[in-house]
Order: sequence, then C-alpha cells, then structure tokens
Amino acid sequence: MAETHTQTDLDKLRDRWGELSVEQRIEEFRRLSTADAQEFFSELNALDQAELLQQMTQSERRLWFRSLAPDDAADIIQELPEEKRKEYLDLADATTRSEIIALLAYKEDVAGGLMSPRYARVRPDMTVSEAISYVRLQAVEHVETIYYIYVLDSEQHLLGALSLRELFAAPNGKLIQEIMNTNVITADEQMDQEELVRLFAQEDLLAIPVVDSEKRMKGIVTVDDIVDVVSEEATEDIQKMGGTEALDMPYLRSTLSEMIRKRAGWLTVLFVGEMLTASAMAHYEGEIAKAVVLAVFLPLIISSGGNAGSQASTLVIRAMALGEVKLTDWKRVVRREIVSGLALGLILGVIGVLRVVLWEQLFHSYGPHALKLGITVGISLVAVVMWGSLTGSFLPFVLRRLKFDPASASTPFVATMVDVTGVVIYFSTANVLLKGSLL
Amino acid sequence: MAETHTQTDLDKLRDRWGELSVEQRIEEFRRLSTADAQEFFSELNALDQAELLQQMTQSERRLWFRSLAPDDAADIIQELPEEKRKEYLDLADATTRSEIIALLAYKEDVAGGLMSPRYARVRPDMTVSEAISYVRLQAVEHVETIYYIYVLDSEQHLLGALSLRELFAAPNGKLIQEIMNTNVITADEQMDQEELVRLFAQEDLLAIPVVDSEKRMKGIVTVDDIVDVVSEEATEDIQKMGGTEALDMPYLRSTLSEMIRKRAGWLTVLFVGEMLTASAMAHYEGEIAKAVVLAVFLPLIISSGGNAGSQASTLVIRAMALGEVKLTDWKRVVRREIVSGLALGLILGVIGVLRVVLWEQLFHSYGPHALKLGITVGISLVAVVMWGSLTGSFLPFVLRRLKFDPASASTPFVATMVDVTGVVIYFSTANVLLKGSLL
Repeated sequence: MAETHTQTDLDKLRDRWGELSVEQRIEEFRRLSTADAQEFFSELNALDQAELLQQMTQSERRLWFRSLAPDDAADIIQELPEEKRKEYLDLADATTRSEIIALLAYKEDVAGGLMSPRYARVRPDMTVSEAISYVRLQAVEHVETIYYIYVLDSEQHLLGALSLRELFAAPNGKLIQEIMNTNVITADEQMDQEELVRLFAQEDLLAIPVVDSEKRMKGIVTVDDIVDVVSEEATEDIQKMGGTEALDMPYLRSTLSEMIRKRAGWLTVLFVGEMLTASAMAHYEGEIAKAVVLAVFLPLIISSGGNAGSQASTLVIRAMALGEVKLTDWKRVVRREIVSGLALGLILGVIGVLRVVLWEQLFHSYGPHALKLGITVGISLVAVVMWGSLTGSFLPFVLRRLKFDPASASTPFVATMVDVTGVVIYFSTANVLLKGSLL
Repeated sequence: MAETHTQTDLDKLRDRWGELSVEQRIEEFRRLSTADAQEFFSELNALDQAELLQQMTQSERRLWFRSLAPDDAADIIQELPEEKRKEYLDLADATTRSEIIALLAYKEDVAGGLMSPRYARVRPDMTVSEAISYVRLQAVEHVETIYYIYVLDSEQHLLGALSLRELFAAPNGKLIQEIMNTNVITADEQMDQEELVRLFAQEDLLAIPVVDSEKRMKGIVTVDDIVDVVSEEATEDIQKMGGTEALDMPYLRSTLSEMIRKRAGWLTVLFVGEMLTASAMAHYEGEIAKAVVLAVFLPLIISSGGNAGSQASTLVIRAMALGEVKLTDWKRVVRREIVSGLALGLILGVIGVLRVVLWEQLFHSYGPHALKLGITVGISLVAVVMWGSLTGSFLPFVLRRLKFDPASASTPFVATMVDVTGVVIYFSTANVLLKGSLL
C-alpha cells in the first residue's frame, strides 16, 4: 500500500472538485502526479472533461484528448459548442478520428451512441490455442474488453461469440466455429437506451454487441456504461415526476438562470391549470357566503385527493419504467386502483367525520348541523381519494399511449388536476347533503 | 441461428409470466426444454424463484436449488418463511451450505449480503504461466468471474489483485508478486450498498473485493449485481418521494391489502397534518365571511407553494442520492433556492395580478377593490413560492442530519407543510393590505 499518500491527494481533489472554479480546477489538476492525473481524468464525466480541456494549452489538450477511447472522445465532442468541434477532431489520429465521426452519427441515447468500436475478435477457422494467442495480442491494444470475443467473417458479419472463460476451458485443438455460441443476443444500433438497460438486466451480460440491420458488427456496449445509464434515466424520471424538466447536469453545477428556466415552465403551466380552481370556486361563492365553514375544509379535501393521486401515479410510472406494467395492463391497474382508492378513501373519510364530530363535542365549532357537515366531508373524501387514485394511475397510460413520457404525469400535475375536480366534487356533495340545513 | 424456435418459446413465457398464477407458472416452466428452463430460471428474481421452488416436487427442487450459486441461493432463502429455511439449506451440498450460512449472516443491503464467495485466486510466488494454467482450471469451476484475479496469502489476506488482461499481457516467466497491483480498491463487508454503488461508479470496475476488518478476503461483488442495486435504490427513492412506503416488489405482484397498508400510513399522516389547514382557516372565518372572494384564490396560492416545494425537494433529494450534494452544502443550496424561489414567485405573482385585473376588466368579477385584491394575491404568491422552495430544499437536509432517509421529504409531505403555512401567509397579507377596503 505504498500509494496511500498520493491516493489521499486524489481523494482530496475529488471531494473539493464540486466547489472549485474552472481556473482552480486546471491549477489543481496540473499539480497531480501523472498517474493520479490519468486516473482522475478518466473518472470525470464528459462535461467536466470538456471544460478542463478548454482550459489547457494546445499541447496538453492533444495529450489528454488522445488518451481517450473513441466513445469517450465522442461524448466530449458532443458537449462542445459547434464551432469548437473540428479543432478537437483534428487532435485525434486518423483512425480514431474516423471512429469518432462514425459514433457522432448516433444520437446519445441509442445503442450506437453508447457503444465502443473496439472489441476483441477472432476468425471462425482459428484453433483455440491460436485464438488465445491472438486475443493475448489484442489485450495489449486498446480494446474495451477481452472477456467477450466476437467471431466475424471477412465482411464484419457477426457469426458467433464466446467468453474468454469458454475459450479458456476448451481443448487447444478445437476450432472456434465448433465451440462458439451462434445464438448471440445483439442490440440494433438504433435500440433505445432504456430498452438496452432492460436487455442487460434480463440477460446478465457484461457486454452486448451492437449490429446494423444487416447483422454487421458495429461495436459493443459494456455493462459499466449501463450503470451510468440506469442512474441517469432514474434521475430524469425523478425530476420530471417532481414537476421540473430534467436538469441534465448536477444540481449545484447548473447555472441559476438555467435552473429557473427549467422549473418556471412547468410551474407556470401548473399555475394556469390551478387557476381553474378559482373559476370553479367562483361558482360556489353563494354557498361559501352562506356557510363559511365549508371553505375551512376545502384544502384538506382537495389535497387528500392530490396525495392519493401522487401515490398512484408514482407507483405506475416507476412500474412502467421497469417494464413491470405494460400498456395492455391498464385494465388490471384501474381495477386495483378503484379498490385501493375506495379503501384509502374510507380510512380518511372515517377520520374526517370523527374530526368534525369530535371538534363539535369539544369546542362547539360547527353548530347544530355538525353531523351533516361531517358526513359531507367524509363522503367527499371517499369520492376525491378514489378519483385521485384513478386519475393518478390512468394518466401515465394516456401519456404513454400518446407517445409522451409517462413520467410527465408528475405529482404536481396530478395534484392540480385533482384539485380542480375536487372543488366540484366537494361543493356538489354539499349541495345535495346540506340543502335546507347549512345551505 | 438454429435455436430461433425455442428462443421464441422462451420469449413468450417471459412476456406472459406476469399474468400467470403460480400453478400456471410451474406448468409452463415444466414444458420448457432443459436448456431454456436453465436460462429462464437463472433470469428470475429471488422472489419468483422461491415461489417456483415451493411448487416443485422434492427431486425437482433439489435439482434446481443445487443449480444456484451460493449468493443466489442465500437470496432465495431470505424470501422464504422462517420454518422452511432449514429444509432448503439441507438441499445443498455441505460446502455450499456453509457458504450460504455465512452469507445469511449479512444484511441484504450491505456488501457482505451482495457478494459471492467464489472468486479466482492465485498465490504471490506463482509465475505468470503457472497462474494462467491455474486460472484456466478455475474457469471450469463455479467461480463468479475469472476476469479479476486476487492474490492471497495462506491466511486469506488480500495481498494484491490483477486483471486477467494484465496477466495475459505479462511475460510468462514473471512472478505474480512482481506484476500485481498492491493498491487495491476494497469494500468493507459492512459497507452500505448505496456507498458501494458510488464506489463502482467512481472506479469503473467490473468487480470489487470484499474484506473484513483484518483485510481477509470474504468475496467479490460484481458490477451486474450493482446494476440491480442502482435500479432498486432508485425505485425505493421514487416511491418514497411519491408519498408511499417502498413496495419492495413489483406493483402488479403486491397483494391489494399490502399495497393499501403501505399507502395508508403516509396518507393518514399527511391527512392529519393537513387538518392543520382547517384549524388555521377557522381563525380566518371572519375574513372569509366579509370577503368570500378571498377563499376563491386560496387553492391557487397554497398549491403553487406546494408545487415549488416539490421541485426543490425532488432536485435536492436526487442530488443527495447521487452524492452531488453533501450535508455541508446546505448553505449553498439554501442560497440558490432563495434566489430561484424569488424569481419563480415573481413570475407567478405577475401572472396572478394580471389574472385578477383582467377578469375584473372582462367580467367585473371582483368589484372596486380588484387591484388591491390582485396585489394581495401577487404578494402572497411571491412569499408562498419562496417559502415552498426553501422548505422543500431544506427538509431533506434536516432529515439526513437526523439520520432519516432524505427521500421521505416526499412531494406530498412538502406540499402539506407548505399548505398550512400558505393559509397563514395569504390571510396575513390580506389582513395588512385589505384592511379598510375588502376587510
């Protein structure tokens, strides 16, 4: 453990990184030993790498940019302003440059945009011992992993694959084509990254080969890239579900103006939607004037519907993202939510009635019609909670069917929808039950 | 691609699995070819595996249980009722049984509970070619991965590690102790899985060795286990943030009574909290009686505070989970949220004033004091949105400081807190601004 000291230097920089300005970053980075700097640079995300490269001298920039695998280099180029891209491409050697350009043709969130073009390959007519020597040679080069080996014909068609472990365990004289697996799990170059995550989870593989429509091999996606994707997708969903646009960068790194912009959009939409509560309530001004006590329970009732809706939409959106719930499951989900909503509504309804009756006993808060008022509150709660659960669970299906992201059925969005209808449900119930007494 | 037909059978079962009863499942499973059944069984999660094993005959059960790696077997045993566990343990051979028992001593969510005790090992005084042959032997056995090789002394102390790739690239005659890395990243057996996820993300490794307090090697955690953990942790956080307890199983698989129980707890807590709005409003019955129009804008104002709070808490909770925001960052976060909250509040406030003034112009809705009413609404919005942003961002810090999960600062929880204070803010503002006119 001789490296304990430098390890600590590195750790310190990792801890402080978030708080440093760009100028301080390049300064501290230059102070690291070469080995530490290499380790540190490779750990940074593409955004930070790009920022750091921008601060470097021309010769430093060439050195560090050339240290990158082509897929990582492509990620950095995507973070740069348009006019800078050519300059960076020119830093790479000719082979890498053409690999980067090929990768830039893919969107960031499809298999092609995640893959590395450098993988270990053998020919079908090699023997096991020939293949082991050949792979040993490739281990020294810059291939992404040597642990899965792909068998290609002269036109790059994927014929089969085998793990290094299988190669190891096979007798020396066998031919590759005798021991390779021909039934290979592949991903199309345009496969969406969410689908790719599910494929990795289902198949428990370390890497999946990416092919074009003619089964020609284009690259491999490795599981360590997928860990990042899983986390990014969850972050995006969580942020949408909280009622903002996805930030696409760490909270403390986004500029204030960007963050405000990404939050103001939805907040304004929700605000305009919520204005309908004012319009709805304007219809019931007469009722409120006659029985001010009705207004007192309004926030309690509509927010309970919103809370039940939040629960339902959250559960359904996440289940959809994990592939547990499909579009065709909508009937089963709706049935479950009607039952759950009824049960939950009854629980809150009973507590609501007790609250009104108890307060009347203790403080004489609500006068002679307290029981009727309590029943109005209770029945409204049952109806609003059921309605909330139903809306919250159904909305993600509607959004998905219309090809929107179900995660946009955010908690605040559902709450707003339920608030407006909650006003109507509550006052309608009151009009029926309290006519002739309070109203 | 000769296996296309059976592949399709498998796919069909995968698709329908979620809809099948336990009896149908065992029936369909028995219909699969041995190869397909093996693939399918290994893909199932521990819960489904346990359920399927329960349906099997004694001899089937022994066969399938013995096909499992010890860490997977331990996961299944944790899903079984207490009284069944011994019976299953007895199905395993003596070595595996003692491995399983060792694993069961760990909590599920620490490194020890995730690790596999089967890894590739070499001795420090072996040559490279001896080590390659030795690892080739282990490749045939049931080790989890041969791609990382651990160098142990006779007392299982971890001396170093190297990748199969490094072993491959080294000259035959070198000794392992000359080429091994001594500065190995390790995880303590009690390390929490969230911390482990961050370690994997930071170091980009395929596997991390797990050691006890005396640096004796206990097992390895591989990256494919981590993919599942990342997804599970995100699911838990999302569900808590939506205001329910974590379901701990797929939405459609949980029983209705369980789901209702997990939702009713928080919903009731929120309901009781929200009752404070009724108490708060009871104080302002006089004001509402004088100016019913005030009640009309109440839901709009308090829900806007709740929405702003949802955004803030969601962003902060996720940033904490990703390690982007630490406890010590609270001042920076609060500063950001005050500025954002002010900006967002001003946007909504201006729209709110315009809404009131415009409706007065168009419909004469609010009478001679419309402008004053509009300003009351606008100022309340600024104050409530700022307050919501501040509460939503600060609450996760408080929870974390008190050693609770910050994700419990759920959207509905924040909204409820802000609703109660929103009532007070709104009516206090009205009392100041409208005294002598509307009030």
